[in-house]
Amino acid sequence: MKSVDDIARQAKQAKLELMKISTAQKNDILEAMAQGLTDEAAYIIARNAVDVEESKKKGKTESLIDRLALNEKRIEAMAQGLRDIARLDDPIGEVIGAKKRPNGLLISKQRVPLGVIGIIYEARPNVTADAVGLCLKAGNAVVLKGSSEAIHSNIAISEIMVKRGEAVGLPKGAVGLIRETSREAAAHMMKLNEYIDVLIPRGGAGLIKSVVENATVPVIETGTGNCHIYVDQYADLQMAKEITVNAKVSRPSVCNAAESLLVHKDVADKFLPKVIGALVEKDVEVRGCPTCEQYGAKPATDEDYYTEFLDLIISVKVVDSFDEAVAHINKYSTGHSEAIITDSYTNAQRFKAEVDSAAVYVNASTRYTDGFEFGFGAEIGISTQRLHARGPMGLEELTTVKYVIDGDGQVRW
Amino acid sequence: MKSVDDIARQAKQAKLELMKISTAQKNDILEAMAQGLTDEAAYIIARNAVDVEESKKKGKTESLIDRLALNEKRIEAMAQGLRDIARLDDPIGEVIGAKKRPNGLLISKQRVPLGVIGIIYEARPNVTADAVGLCLKAGNAVVLKGSSEAIHSNIAISEIMVKRGEAVGLPKGAVGLIRETSREAAAHMMKLNEYIDVLIPRGGAGLIKSVVENATVPVIETGTGNCHIYVDQYADLQMAKEITVNAKVSRPSVCNAAESLLVHKDVADKFLPKVIGALVEKDVEVRGCPTCEQYGAKPATDEDYYTEFLDLIISVKVVDSFDEAVAHINKYSTGHSEAIITDSYTNAQRFKAEVDSAAVYVNASTRYTDGFEFGFGAEIGISTQRLHARGPMGLEELTTVKYVIDGDGQVRW
Repeated sequence: MKSVDDIARQAKQAKLELMKISTAQKNDILEAMAQGLTDEAAYIIARNAVDVEESKKKGKTESLIDRLALNEKRIEAMAQGLRDIARLDDPIGEVIGAKKRPNGLLISKQRVPLGVIGIIYEARPNVTADAVGLCLKAGNAVVLKGSSEAIHSNIAISEIMVKRGEAVGLPKGAVGLIRETSREAAAHMMKLNEYIDVLIPRGGAGLIKSVVENATVPVIETGTGNCHIYVDQYADLQMAKEITVNAKVSRPSVCNAAESLLVHKDVADKFLPKVIGALVEKDVEVRGCPTCEQYGAKPATDEDYYTEFLDLIISVKVVDSFDEAVAHINKYSTGHSEAIITDSYTNAQRFKAEVDSAAVYVNASTRYTDGFEFGFGAEIGISTQRLHARGPMGLEELTTVKYVIDGDGQVRW
Repeated sequence: MKSVDDIARQAKQAKLELMKISTAQKNDILEAMAQGLTDEAAYIIARNAVDVEESKKKGKTESLIDRLALNEKRIEAMAQGLRDIARLDDPIGEVIGAKKRPNGLLISKQRVPLGVIGIIYEARPNVTADAVGLCLKAGNAVVLKGSSEAIHSNIAISEIMVKRGEAVGLPKGAVGLIRETSREAAAHMMKLNEYIDVLIPRGGAGLIKSVVENATVPVIETGTGNCHIYVDQYADLQMAKEITVNAKVSRPSVCNAAESLLVHKDVADKFLPKVIGALVEKDVEVRGCPTCEQYGAKPATDEDYYTEFLDLIISVKVVDSFDEAVAHINKYSTGHSEAIITDSYTNAQRFKAEVDSAAVYVNASTRYTDGFEFGFGAEIGISTQRLHARGPMGLEELTTVKYVIDGDGQVRW
């Protein structure tokens, strides 16, 4: 597929140029891109209107159209995002460590760009700007593949960013948007190991599964969070109620929202009526075990315990012991974020050590698993795999390393 | 494929047990395994003889049979390898960083095991012991899939290690060997994302390609090295000759051996006769550009410049400039190791920055790209991909991270 190959090949060329440009130059490029989005907001909105119109004609869901639609405020937020990224520290060039070997070689480990990053995403045109900003700041070339619903918006946004960027030194080909929106184009892109160093899919579970199953290019898997709150017998029950309600209802559609609540049997009779009452008051559907049903929950299936509802639904289970809680989480969780509410030092320590998830909390809401909340200043997603990055991914996770060795004639026989 | 699923599922169970065991326990297990190999060397040699016999009957190559055959010395080396790993620092539990956030949350980033590591390898039974030792020391469960040629040896070695290990606390299922040697069993293993966290293929280019193309489990790609030596116009030509000869002939079959030599035109007439003479004297076949042919090289094809010979063959090319040398390397290299020989500070600095390979040398042989030479004390392979690990991989590269968050009731609205 020549058009896709061409974009990826140009990105590979551009990555070599990007290795040479300075932090100041990268920041200038990001500021210029931000200014372009601000200046040409009206044009972007007009092109976006074509996408919105077509999606309405095709009967797409309201929530898709809401994610797709741009207005001045949303475009300004994209521009501000780029300016914020310009202000972050540049991760590139950091010397992570250096060691003089007995033979006199000085071996340094340095942080360098990942290379060419492929982003495959759905109908959110703001991803176009966000992903480009983060990838470029970490010195990477980007190949973008958005969905057909947003193609006019994506073309407009990327054209403006490229034009403004190139005017202040963005290497040719450093930002490429694949305009073919077919599944074949995506499938082809996923196998371009020669040009693309890593793929980051951003979107729903279906998209991510498709990329994991079809790509030969290495993938960073992001997103799914079947997050648990475990209320230990030593919990402060008022705190437990507040954290449970916060983790479930503050933003139910995001991956760090709680989907399941485990309650130690010794506090079940005291805690369940309180927490179920508070959840129901917030319009949450509670699906639980037989004990929970006594306090007004609907019956839960085993499938419910595996489910990331992304909605005002929660599964609840009474457990006989701390060990059962940990075993349940390690079995049913997607490995994203889990919290224990307890005042037992031993149980807090054991929970942190034995629960096998990317983020493990004591006495706090799972909703904090987020690059901004973690202080990274930015986020490209939350990795739920173990290779390369785990948990929120900031600029550092968009880099790799290189060994630089200074010698004075060493040979090894 | 039930037998494969069972082994992988047990490994996943075992990884949770491995999260709890101490460094001292892990070291005891490694020492016990080493003692087992020493004690039962005669049994291993007898089982290995079956493999060797069958490979001879099937007319396998002598080099395969050499890699396959075990004797007391080789088994003792395997045992010593395990004892050496026991003596290395444990990477697990290290707190890489911790930050108190304005809201009072203490967020710590800690080093934890990768989880379940799948090793797919060829007819080297020593990999069975090496891989198990390294993976276990970093707290990981292992699923081994060796080749049919070594199956009796692999069963014997893994059975002894498991028996001796379990006697001193190795969790059940932590080390599993897949006994089905079919391609289907390997293909099935490569898609077990539910149980296996990462695959590390160890072997030739064909094996690695097959794993990269077929796996849905994340892969760490190792191995191929089309390494370059660039002799700059400011090189000490005596040093350049010594490094070139060393990098080519000291061990031509390994991935850090040089496969290609670039020479700046200003020193070509002085350097080429010397270096070609020295290489030919060591039985190296020199394939070069027209200028090289004047000094006795055979003509090189474009394909030669892409080739990892792994043999006493080298491609040579005269380049017009430093920039041409860097562009040639970035085009033809596999991104493993490259060296410049120069006394120009500017060219040394530029080479280190602009050459896009895992290891970049100034005035030293590429042969140093190796976990032991880099001071890691061990090595599971050399990564030529950019995700997760790049260059020699020691114990640290067999780990991932986890965020541990201590709170006192924080919620996020």
